[in-house]
Amino acid sequence: MQSVNQWRHVFKLDPAKEIDDDSLEKVCESGTDAIMVGGSTGVTFDNTVRLLSRVRRFAVPCCLEVSQLDAVVPGFDLYLVPVVLNAGSPEWIIGSHVRGLKEYGPFVPWEQVMVEGYVVLNDDSSVAGVTESRHPGGLKDVKAYAQLADRLLKLPIFYMEYSGTYGDPEWVKEVKKTLTDSRLFYGGGIKNAEQAEEMAHYADTVVVGNIIYEDVNQALQTVEGVKSAGTPL
Amino acid sequence: MQSVNQWRHVFKLDPAKEIDDDSLEKVCESGTDAIMVGGSTGVTFDNTVRLLSRVRRFAVPCCLEVSQLDAVVPGFDLYLVPVVLNAGSPEWIIGSHVRGLKEYGPFVPWEQVMVEGYVVLNDDSSVAGVTESRHPGGLKDVKAYAQLADRLLKLPIFYMEYSGTYGDPEWVKEVKKTLTDSRLFYGGGIKNAEQAEEMAHYADTVVVGNIIYEDVNQALQTVEGVKSAGTPL
Repeated sequence: MQSVNQWRHVFKLDPAKEIDDDSLEKVCESGTDAIMVGGSTGVTFDNTVRLLSRVRRFAVPCCLEVSQLDAVVPGFDLYLVPVVLNAGSPEWIIGSHVRGLKEYGPFVPWEQVMVEGYVVLNDDSSVAGVTESRHPGGLKDVKAYAQLADRLLKLPIFYMEYSGTYGDPEWVKEVKKTLTDSRLFYGGGIKNAEQAEEMAHYADTVVVGNIIYEDVNQALQTVEGVKSAGTPL
Repeated sequence: MQSVNQWRHVFKLDPAKEIDDDSLEKVCESGTDAIMVGGSTGVTFDNTVRLLSRVRRFAVPCCLEVSQLDAVVPGFDLYLVPVVLNAGSPEWIIGSHVRGLKEYGPFVPWEQVMVEGYVVLNDDSSVAGVTESRHPGGLKDVKAYAQLADRLLKLPIFYMEYSGTYGDPEWVKEVKKTLTDSRLFYGGGIKNAEQAEEMAHYADTVVVGNIIYEDVNQALQTVEGVKSAGTPL
């Protein structure tokens, strides 16, 4: 099992987006703790396997965030399975998982699988569209989801997904204080070292995605930003 | 924490149904491993607290299966929280739990809480009506739910709820073979010692309910039935 508990910074690469070899090398050799492969739309078996084989030229751990059954490629170090806690239909909470297990259950390498309890906090994101998720409401609601993941379901990861927008650091701080065992992942809208550092004060793991495709050099600086935050709250 | 892992036989009492003192004493002193208090309709704080106080006169462990927020009574040995995996809406999977945690989160005695991963297998039952659950389909589907509970979500209990009808022992057997860590609860339609024994060959814990209210002496014999099954598969 990959030591997710040591991951402070993660780069998230989308198989449906183009990245040149030079940028990919910089990202993989940046000192980030892991590469997470995943996206909400346009992810296929082919573009996933292509991205994996390119990342595999480097020593960095590489995990797949499973979003579509037909894009589950063998050979990743770890498989992160999102359970979208605020999804609008059972399908994205557990429905698709059950269908997947019905088909592939006997072949799942369970020692390489971890569940992420997701809460989607940006209603305008494509992940919100796909999962029909609804914003939980206020901070109290998000904290209730955090308790559900942490204490009731005992999920290893609670993931605050602001997808494309920068979240509220105060909320991340308060959620972190609520959690006892689950690891807190933060993702969304990080564009520079300062933002990465700010979220890393509270989140155990900071996930940086889109900026890679907009300004790779800015993206690289987020690694240092997270490191300079020290140990989270 | 109550040692649920030792429970082979459980009597389930419905706070909305009447039971006389003599019958209640017989049930509590029957040698059953625990009394589970719960029901799908008509459960209130008042009738739950009344039933708890009557059961408390005996030494048997008493747990509450939480179905309604306003009927959560303090003082039980254990609180079993159902997550209805095949519910038709997010509400019964986790929605009501989040609302509950928002209101009462800080007061939850977590060391006394366990999650049950429920699959409702009788579409005509009131629990199916309340939770809008849909029969999973075939045995393969039920096994996928079992894997979801056992391997993905790592829930302590997987509960096959046939609610009022006697289930298919072959299915219970196959599900038991699928599970690695979750404890298998079976509930539904057990009316005599033979049926209790049959299900106890496969299920770790056999729950006996309705027959208590129809023929208490028949119900009492299910304790012996379960015992004579020995260790489950």
